[in-house]
Amino acid sequence: AIADHLAGWFAAREAPKPLASRHALVTSGPTYEPIDPVRYIANRSSGKQGHAVAASLAALGARVTLVSGPVRLPDPPGVDVVAVETAAEMLAACRAALPADIFVAAAAVADWRVEAAGQKLKKDGGGPPTLALSENPDILASLSAPSPDRPALVIGFAAETNDIVAYARAKRLRKGCDWIVANDVSPATGTFGGDRNSVYVIRADGTEEAWENLAKTEVARRLADAISNHFETGKK
Amino acid sequence: AIADHLAGWFAAREAPKPLASRHALVTSGPTYEPIDPVRYIANRSSGKQGHAVAASLAALGARVTLVSGPVRLPDPPGVDVVAVETAAEMLAACRAALPADIFVAAAAVADWRVEAAGQKLKKDGGGPPTLALSENPDILASLSAPSPDRPALVIGFAAETNDIVAYARAKRLRKGCDWIVANDVSPATGTFGGDRNSVYVIRADGTEEAWENLAKTEVARRLADAISNHFETGKK
Repeated sequence: AIADHLAGWFAAREAPKPLASRHALVTSGPTYEPIDPVRYIANRSSGKQGHAVAASLAALGARVTLVSGPVRLPDPPGVDVVAVETAAEMLAACRAALPADIFVAAAAVADWRVEAAGQKLKKDGGGPPTLALSENPDILASLSAPSPDRPALVIGFAAETNDIVAYARAKRLRKGCDWIVANDVSPATGTFGGDRNSVYVIRADGTEEAWENLAKTEVARRLADAISNHFETGKK
Repeated sequence: AIADHLAGWFAAREAPKPLASRHALVTSGPTYEPIDPVRYIANRSSGKQGHAVAASLAALGARVTLVSGPVRLPDPPGVDVVAVETAAEMLAACRAALPADIFVAAAAVADWRVEAAGQKLKKDGGGPPTLALSENPDILASLSAPSPDRPALVIGFAAETNDIVAYARAKRLRKGCDWIVANDVSPATGTFGGDRNSVYVIRADGTEEAWENLAKTEVARRLADAISNHFETGKK
């Protein structure tokens, strides 16, 4: 009885783990799309926001799978990290990680890949080449689509450089996700690569919130809390 | 007299500094060419070989200016590092660093930049865009061209994926550089990003040498020694 009492006392001292029974799948970072054996198309995503979301969900007790493009960040503690390079690899890794209760698509996935990315481009005197692009698989839309494997809560990110909120509302409807976290990545904001973020959270129930000028880690904590509240409310 | 003697004794113990009166300009790493505010074209150069060459030239006493694209490497000790992103910025930084006695062009400079890299590319339902490329300035050819500012010894690198030596000989003639260091960067070799290299050194005097399967730091030491010998021989 004394042992039980002590065990209970120690458990109560630990942080609450409201997401303990949940599996969260998070994407982070850029994707690299090969042009040829040495060249590729990339983007300025650092992975800081996605990695912070993965860490915050793990801190609330979730089992977290983090599918990440190439980043210069350490793996968040207690998180299973799957390293990928292209959008096609990221989609395959996400599908392989299902089922999940929560999907947070924070990666900056390349919209296009380069067709015929085989032989090295050569300067042959015939003038510069043109790169023909083809559309990449849409990971957020794919995992948002109705299916027995659809995560209960799907959250997209919208990285925009202008008309942030309008584009983000339209993107949420087009992708079929439940929430969207919109941020301004125009170079003047320093969001890509920086440590701070201002986001606008848009939910399917019509509620919208601005979280302004926060550390990316704080944006992540608020998002993880909101996710946790969503599941708690759903239980009632 | 005793102080002089001791000073001479300590000086003799130090490594020889045969390049002490020389200024070496070295480029390293990839260049990033913007597609739009968030996307860019990059290549898999790690900068390891170029940074090692800069360090080896500094170790032989040269004053070294290292103009580097984005890399994940520490600045070599005793080297002035100028960080750039695009090929145009790299050329401007190289010109600003002249005069130099030695120019080693180890960077993997993008051959092309994207025209009209202004607004963010959008998926507008009109099908994937094509990227129109235009030719970048040729840094090696520019600094090899006869001019009062031409470094006395200009060394290019040739990163090829097939027919290494034939392409490299042709490249040396086309660029007008004195030596060229050819290496195989096809993905199977692991040269881009890896720690080892096999190179083929081609000189204007017709001498050619293969330096096979060496650490990039050892390739750098041999190249710095060869550069030092070139200037010593020139004095005689």
